[in-house]
Amino acid sequence: MYSVPAYATPAADAALAPHTITRRNPGPHDVQIEILYSGVCHSDIHQARNEWGGSMYPMVPGHEIVGRVIAIGDHVKNFKVGELAGVGCLVDSCRTCEQCQAGDEQFCETGSVGTYNSKEYNGEPTYGGYSTQIVVDENFVLHVSEKLDLKAVAPLLCAGITTYSPLRHWKVGAGQRVAVVGLGGLGHMGVKLAAAMGAEVTVISTSDSKEADAKRLGATHFINSKKPDAYKGWEKSFHLILNTVSAPHSYDSLLPLLKTNGTMTLVGAPPTPSEVVGFNLIMQRRMLAGSLIGGIKETQEMLDFCAEHNIVSDVEIINMNQINEAYERMMKSDVKYRFVIDMASLKG
Amino acid sequence: MYSVPAYATPAADAALAPHTITRRNPGPHDVQIEILYSGVCHSDIHQARNEWGGSMYPMVPGHEIVGRVIAIGDHVKNFKVGELAGVGCLVDSCRTCEQCQAGDEQFCETGSVGTYNSKEYNGEPTYGGYSTQIVVDENFVLHVSEKLDLKAVAPLLCAGITTYSPLRHWKVGAGQRVAVVGLGGLGHMGVKLAAAMGAEVTVISTSDSKEADAKRLGATHFINSKKPDAYKGWEKSFHLILNTVSAPHSYDSLLPLLKTNGTMTLVGAPPTPSEVVGFNLIMQRRMLAGSLIGGIKETQEMLDFCAEHNIVSDVEIINMNQINEAYERMMKSDVKYRFVIDMASLKG
Repeated sequence: MYSVPAYATPAADAALAPHTITRRNPGPHDVQIEILYSGVCHSDIHQARNEWGGSMYPMVPGHEIVGRVIAIGDHVKNFKVGELAGVGCLVDSCRTCEQCQAGDEQFCETGSVGTYNSKEYNGEPTYGGYSTQIVVDENFVLHVSEKLDLKAVAPLLCAGITTYSPLRHWKVGAGQRVAVVGLGGLGHMGVKLAAAMGAEVTVISTSDSKEADAKRLGATHFINSKKPDAYKGWEKSFHLILNTVSAPHSYDSLLPLLKTNGTMTLVGAPPTPSEVVGFNLIMQRRMLAGSLIGGIKETQEMLDFCAEHNIVSDVEIINMNQINEAYERMMKSDVKYRFVIDMASLKG
Repeated sequence: MYSVPAYATPAADAALAPHTITRRNPGPHDVQIEILYSGVCHSDIHQARNEWGGSMYPMVPGHEIVGRVIAIGDHVKNFKVGELAGVGCLVDSCRTCEQCQAGDEQFCETGSVGTYNSKEYNGEPTYGGYSTQIVVDENFVLHVSEKLDLKAVAPLLCAGITTYSPLRHWKVGAGQRVAVVGLGGLGHMGVKLAAAMGAEVTVISTSDSKEADAKRLGATHFINSKKPDAYKGWEKSFHLILNTVSAPHSYDSLLPLLKTNGTMTLVGAPPTPSEVVGFNLIMQRRMLAGSLIGGIKETQEMLDFCAEHNIVSDVEIINMNQINEAYERMMKSDVKYRFVIDMASLKG
């Protein structure tokens, strides 16, 4: 065990503040990573504030981690000291159940181990990316290309895979029309990725102020959902609707925009139920689905895809001590499109 | 044009009564069918009473039609006089759109022609199976095996295909666990078909009185959804939930019963919206879907499957003049499991 500086919150109603945590010494299969950048995901706020229940304190959030390998265990095969590395939402899973075998560790039947606010199988609490180092089994560490702007890669580890996985699962490609609902941290990645996969992308947003950005990011069309008759002429238009909105909203107003056999997949989870009229599903064999991050193999595939297509997140870099202010700005959607902490600011 | 006896309703608030309709003389591609049995679908009531809006009167309901070919047009290739024949919910479609080309005429982009309460492309109203004869283009006529009990075949044309199509679409087979929610006209067919496809079937019903029947029809397990903790131990159990209930009910209570990547498909459409919590879909990549009857090719496949597996509907035969009483009993779910009209009773 060794100590590293971190930022933690001691309770649901407390601010984040400097804190010291311990990390395990790297075991034979472990990779020790110096964290260079850590993205700030909206779920960090939900968990820090115990909005989903069951939060464990002190909590060190952060599951969009990129850095450089500084040590490896004796049996590590796929990483070398000095290489770039990434860690996303998961740091372990049972590896034997049907879901793990299928590469869907996020659905591990035993329960996967989250990067923070979780417990290792030996009972030790996990601490996330708002710290200077992390030690992770190599099977849950990702390779990161040197080609990309590293600080803008961090959000790919959650926002990237969360949008990439459903686009792949529902086989988005050339000739398809995809709508992305909500242009925030998730949505802006969804637009970039769907466009790179060859789809024609439409952004659906509540604010005209997002139109220029939507088109810059790769969208062809823009719909302001607050305008009267916003969806007129858009019925049966989309093969897939990637719905990234976590504020309460009507699913039913969006379902008629799906083509026959089309799917709307939720990656944002409103805290309250939304209404669904069965006829909107039945009449065109439509589907309302959900998707949760992605598996490790798929996350690597996403990172490789991003390197190939030169895709990163649009980020605003902050110092560690600006995190509480960043949370407040995120609550007002005042970020384009992801805060990333420069972890050098925690060492100094 | 020629006249045939029928039963029709002149208005949403009127009873069905004897009526005379005209049928077209068979054209070169038409099959003229003497109707022997006509099933009574719950949608007959919805439409007769204009509960879905847009009903056209006088209305002759009935889209579960079996009978014998009594004449064919010069260019008819696939039917001969004297053969059995069936007609389901559709009597025409554009035949050229993407959906028709894919064999999904029920989703025809031009709009398919319903067997009743619809209009042919030439503007003529369509009249359904509560009559002694019907004339239909051979492309929308099904072959019916002589092996099966004909009067019990009629409901296959709607209740059969409505449940068969989603079971096939979501690839139900051996080693899979399927739940059928609701044991009525649709549900009892769903149980028989899913069991014949090799799935382990569980019936979910609000009444213990259905348990014995559920098991007789092919179910292995039975859940009374009204009992406290009814679903305890059933979380993540089913690959597919075939939800046949058209009374308002909670989708959210059922979604957690789906395995990872599982689908609940609605084939009954409650008149009011139901609530859905996004988390229930997201956490296991579950899907809530709908399915609408099936295409013509798939309907033939279903009839052939039923002949091979000796599957028919459980029916109660009535005379034509008992139809209004039958509707009242159906409103109380007092039928096991489908009324079928013996059309000989209309001729006499």
